[in-house]
Amino acid sequence: MQKIAVLGYGVVGSGTVEVFYKNKDNLEKKAGEELDIKYILDLRDFPDSPYADKFVKDFNVILNDPEVRVVTEVIGGIKPSYDFVKSSLLAGKSVVTSNKELVAKKGAELLKIAHDNHVNFFFEASVGGGIPIIKPIHACLEANEIDAIAGILNGTTNFILTKMFREGMSFDEALKIAQQLGYAERDPSADVEGADACRKICILASLAFGRHVYPENVHTEGITNVTLADVEYMDSFDAKIKLIGCARREENNEISIGVFPAVIKDESQLSGVSDVFNAILVRGDATGDVVFYGKGAGKLPTASAVVSDIVSAVKHNETSRSLGWSDSEQSFIRSFDEFTCANYVRLKAGNIDVTKAVIKALFGDVKYLSSNKKEENELAFVTDVMKEKDAVSALEKVSDGAEILGRIRVLDY
Amino acid sequence: MQKIAVLGYGVVGSGTVEVFYKNKDNLEKKAGEELDIKYILDLRDFPDSPYADKFVKDFNVILNDPEVRVVTEVIGGIKPSYDFVKSSLLAGKSVVTSNKELVAKKGAELLKIAHDNHVNFFFEASVGGGIPIIKPIHACLEANEIDAIAGILNGTTNFILTKMFREGMSFDEALKIAQQLGYAERDPSADVEGADACRKICILASLAFGRHVYPENVHTEGITNVTLADVEYMDSFDAKIKLIGCARREENNEISIGVFPAVIKDESQLSGVSDVFNAILVRGDATGDVVFYGKGAGKLPTASAVVSDIVSAVKHNETSRSLGWSDSEQSFIRSFDEFTCANYVRLKAGNIDVTKAVIKALFGDVKYLSSNKKEENELAFVTDVMKEKDAVSALEKVSDGAEILGRIRVLDY
Repeated sequence: MQKIAVLGYGVVGSGTVEVFYKNKDNLEKKAGEELDIKYILDLRDFPDSPYADKFVKDFNVILNDPEVRVVTEVIGGIKPSYDFVKSSLLAGKSVVTSNKELVAKKGAELLKIAHDNHVNFFFEASVGGGIPIIKPIHACLEANEIDAIAGILNGTTNFILTKMFREGMSFDEALKIAQQLGYAERDPSADVEGADACRKICILASLAFGRHVYPENVHTEGITNVTLADVEYMDSFDAKIKLIGCARREENNEISIGVFPAVIKDESQLSGVSDVFNAILVRGDATGDVVFYGKGAGKLPTASAVVSDIVSAVKHNETSRSLGWSDSEQSFIRSFDEFTCANYVRLKAGNIDVTKAVIKALFGDVKYLSSNKKEENELAFVTDVMKEKDAVSALEKVSDGAEILGRIRVLDY
Repeated sequence: MQKIAVLGYGVVGSGTVEVFYKNKDNLEKKAGEELDIKYILDLRDFPDSPYADKFVKDFNVILNDPEVRVVTEVIGGIKPSYDFVKSSLLAGKSVVTSNKELVAKKGAELLKIAHDNHVNFFFEASVGGGIPIIKPIHACLEANEIDAIAGILNGTTNFILTKMFREGMSFDEALKIAQQLGYAERDPSADVEGADACRKICILASLAFGRHVYPENVHTEGITNVTLADVEYMDSFDAKIKLIGCARREENNEISIGVFPAVIKDESQLSGVSDVFNAILVRGDATGDVVFYGKGAGKLPTASAVVSDIVSAVKHNETSRSLGWSDSEQSFIRSFDEFTCANYVRLKAGNIDVTKAVIKALFGDVKYLSSNKKEENELAFVTDVMKEKDAVSALEKVSDGAEILGRIRVLDY
């Protein structure tokens, strides 16, 4: 019999308990032994819960109970989660978490503590909700050198962008509906400004490239500057705009990484990912592009990933050798100035012919796009692939009465 | 040090050896010990191969060498693979295979032998080439009851259908190009008549539902009857035609299963899967729809899956508890007569008004489709969801000079 503790009885915590008891027989068969949840930690009281007798308010009850072999942290945030997770690992208990902030900020340290204490630190639910992605990368694609990862990692922003594309809604209108439906928080900044997607690409990049990538070292832009005017040009380019987190291997053992709205051509498997769905593309040297798609959030999908990790933690009483990465200096992350991609640019020309001549001089031959709703003297075009710093510098040089209205990077995933 | 033998040095076998040695250091790190390929079995001579000293022609050399702990069978077919695999398992060696025919026909028996001998029988490469799918189902989605699986499981037929859709090619023209590019065999029947997809859905259904599904019990149709005339109607229905293998849980512990061309709406994640790519949708009760996409065949993608299984076999010296299913009677497969779906029908009317009245009497209200290339007196429509036997019976009753030209089932995955 293996005893489990669940820290936090919010959306994911209550989902975890629900999914666990619904599938208990099957999970025990897969784990090869009996399982039970012994404690649920929450500061609130749940007197009417069928699990009322399992609730405790003091974490030390769990920490000091040698029967508890697996601690499930689904509180979120750094405080007090970090202390709970660290002391659990130090006490020889495996930890399963859905906490992307914790893994993105403290992953290398916690993985090392887990290793030193011969237990596991699993976090399948921290990226992509119910989509299997962490285990597939380290335990199915290990015969590959991973060249790149690119994903739609945040459901809230994908919902907003889908509304803008399908229904011609403005960003503000779409955000309001997302909030009404419970997809966006009242303070939506972590989603719409890219911090959530940033944490997730940090976790994926750390796993794929073997060294910890810290969020503060990642160029991060949200979708607040994406306008309906930009959306209207995408039809003529057979493309959509998506918030993408991406990381790729470069020369000299460096990686480039960023989170930003990106133009994605319709032939990409990422282009058709709508509403709150997520998708993650992994480009391996042997397997080519593999894409994992599904619900990136939500009570039961996320709980499904947490419970799967609980079973893995029970089955593997040795630290997983394939899941992990080392700590790192910032130095292996290439400056975002050197990032290379094509660029979509929208601007207001002074004089159309003069501005087109300026564009040709600055960007070379570009592809002009059309829109049914274009304003007078508006131009939109797509450049060739160029370095970020060259694109920024060229945009600053656009002159002769022309004004840059928008610029979105174009990715080829 | 763990020694490995590779049976068969064809496309997948040589790819396996190539991927193994390219990534050897990394694989050993993940496996936690040194690894080497000791033997390669092939009847042919490869005197110029860098691995020339590893080739043997007699399987007994491998079978009787206690140093060999993992046998990789990439010969294909039943003879002599079945005997090689069975005797390896009986000798206490784990087996990794890419052989879908072997797993679909003998999986339950070989899994039991593996279990009885405390070794593993792994077959990630048998479905979806380099796409991780077998391990994600049994080791990531185990907190779900799987309700349905539907997939584009055969790259050759998907390439042909993509050519028909994008370039208006006939089936015969597209098949010829597939053969020229090496995507289709000179005898393409196993692909175009659905046998290959059938084996794969049998493996997935056995794993998802826990009992062996034998190919001979699965209703299987290929794509040879899909015409350009049908393709032309799909635009007006926002849909594509794909060869789908699908299985779903029904009441009374039964499953329904089949392989056939199906109309798939464009909002489905399966609709945008083009060329030789595969995609597999898994519908879980907790996680909802999850889709796995990538290259379903090819030397390096398939080898990537084989090598990943080799590492898993080395790491797990106990039989995996989560991978497996029991043998079965046919009885848990529901008669295909009871299969329910909507239907696309194309027919030549005698008199348009009379035929429309007949259609209404037989099928109730239907949705008529349009085509730029429709022939005189041709009608095409989509019915509501109905039982297979009712659809067949209604189609037989179409009369008054009308002639059925085509019928394709409509699926909602």
